[in-house]
Amino acid sequence: MRLATRYNGTPDGELVVISADGDRCVPAGSRWPSLLAAIEAWDEAEIALRAMDAETGEILHPSRLRAPLPRSWQWLDGSAFQTHADLMQVAFGTERIEHDKPLMYQGLSDRFLGPYEPVPFPDEAHGIDFEGEFAVVVDRVPMGTGATDAMDHIKLLLQVNDWSLRALAVPEMKTGFGWIQAKPACSMAPYAVTPDALGDAWRDGRVCLDLAIDWNGERFGDANGREMAYGFHELVAHAAATRDLVAGTIIGSGTVANANYAEVGSSCISERRAIEIIAHGKPATGFMRYGDTCRMEARTADGRSIFGAIEQQIVDARINDN
Amino acid sequence: MRLATRYNGTPDGELVVISADGDRCVPAGSRWPSLLAAIEAWDEAEIALRAMDAETGEILHPSRLRAPLPRSWQWLDGSAFQTHADLMQVAFGTERIEHDKPLMYQGLSDRFLGPYEPVPFPDEAHGIDFEGEFAVVVDRVPMGTGATDAMDHIKLLLQVNDWSLRALAVPEMKTGFGWIQAKPACSMAPYAVTPDALGDAWRDGRVCLDLAIDWNGERFGDANGREMAYGFHELVAHAAATRDLVAGTIIGSGTVANANYAEVGSSCISERRAIEIIAHGKPATGFMRYGDTCRMEARTADGRSIFGAIEQQIVDARINDN
Repeated sequence: MRLATRYNGTPDGELVVISADGDRCVPAGSRWPSLLAAIEAWDEAEIALRAMDAETGEILHPSRLRAPLPRSWQWLDGSAFQTHADLMQVAFGTERIEHDKPLMYQGLSDRFLGPYEPVPFPDEAHGIDFEGEFAVVVDRVPMGTGATDAMDHIKLLLQVNDWSLRALAVPEMKTGFGWIQAKPACSMAPYAVTPDALGDAWRDGRVCLDLAIDWNGERFGDANGREMAYGFHELVAHAAATRDLVAGTIIGSGTVANANYAEVGSSCISERRAIEIIAHGKPATGFMRYGDTCRMEARTADGRSIFGAIEQQIVDARINDN
Repeated sequence: MRLATRYNGTPDGELVVISADGDRCVPAGSRWPSLLAAIEAWDEAEIALRAMDAETGEILHPSRLRAPLPRSWQWLDGSAFQTHADLMQVAFGTERIEHDKPLMYQGLSDRFLGPYEPVPFPDEAHGIDFEGEFAVVVDRVPMGTGATDAMDHIKLLLQVNDWSLRALAVPEMKTGFGWIQAKPACSMAPYAVTPDALGDAWRDGRVCLDLAIDWNGERFGDANGREMAYGFHELVAHAAATRDLVAGTIIGSGTVANANYAEVGSSCISERRAIEIIAHGKPATGFMRYGDTCRMEARTADGRSIFGAIEQQIVDARINDN
């Protein structure tokens, strides 16, 4: 099952169920006005939503789509790809992180940008970078839930662009407090999907899809989600060790990266810069400029688009007063 | 004006306006069902709430009070007291943090515990500690708002206990990603107050009140909120540098600490341990045990309680299934 959220003038938007071909949709109705409302009573909502007939529904106008969750109560982003961690250490010029648990930070969750929204940044000099990721949405997870049980709490999968400001990232990281200024709002691809929609591409708590990333229309990366050092269920358990996770909590994978990056490329600019540093002693690729575009779309081995595509342009926040 | 939130079976609770003596209250009514709803339209809400007559209202039953904001979309906690930062460096055995901006992390905001709720923790060995703080609530703050303009966005003041698990804090801090497991849900004192309720104890964006802290009935600290290296308006501007702040965003001061700690004591156990390390080479005071209580109450120079008191007991989360 694939779900999306349409603009309707409310902060949480209108939940719709999407047809198999993605061309049609049916509004979930007043019992399930938003995806946030549905995930808060998922056992009941899932049955009701699966019974709805999207195949004969109305035409879906992509321009009306928002992020599946335009806001949620909690966003916890992991960094589960070891290749990403290794390359970021080179890009940032920082020490190797020695930690026997998953890496995770809490980011802003009061706003997720829709797949086609312009992305406002206050300064090009901040080192504007994209980060292609996958994420999961859980229902309520009680404190102390282990990884095996956590798997059952994963109700939906998402594709996310975790926008990052690299020039601000290292000074914030060195405080140990994590990122505030370096991590503005993330963007989401149009569809939230149940794990079964991936078939065997959802396995071991990992989204085993290639994530095609284009920067200004040129292919930048096509890494696969399978190489997570920790599965999503383990990230959920990590997050729930000392807190109950509220229904609607979103947990991210961190930037998708593969050991064979020479073949598949990268899911963020910083990684490419790290690869250039390793090869030539210094980075050659700059960060994004106003007007640049970024497109991200995950596909199955047989070419089906699962989450739809994020297609955004970055803009000057000082001009584009949103 | 002082506001509180009563239990009514909804996640956000029922907003009430409190009488001058704190004994009576009047429900804000269906237009302003919760404090979160009010802060989202504060200009209108403030006028309406100030016009309500709490003096002839119903008797206020403290046991029905929840946190003024039982949840909100964002909680950003600063660390603005230099004395606290200096002592935590000793307590943690970490390097001095060199940073020319305020220190700040994003914490969980989907749940704030009420002033009298038991506080569940999964393991005494995690080093359970309290942190007495002040905090502000802002309306919507556009990205790029400077400190002077930020002052006008501070609509309410709060008193907070930022519960911390010290044994988990240092390893998480060393990752640079900030705290997840080390920072479970915070607690709030009963009343959210408008800045004018403090008179001249609200000045330079600082809550200049003594914060009396009792651990198991014995006075532990009585530090004053005035010694922040950055005022709350500067913390708000810092947070808003690269993001819009959603209405209802809560910004914390970090643990209240004074340079004359030998006289006034501390607002967290870790500081006392640091003072013991400085004096004797090792800490003598242990962290909290199940069954321990912590009371926090800020008072004016003439003895008035502004936010009411937090009075909580910590419990074993494995027994107390909440």
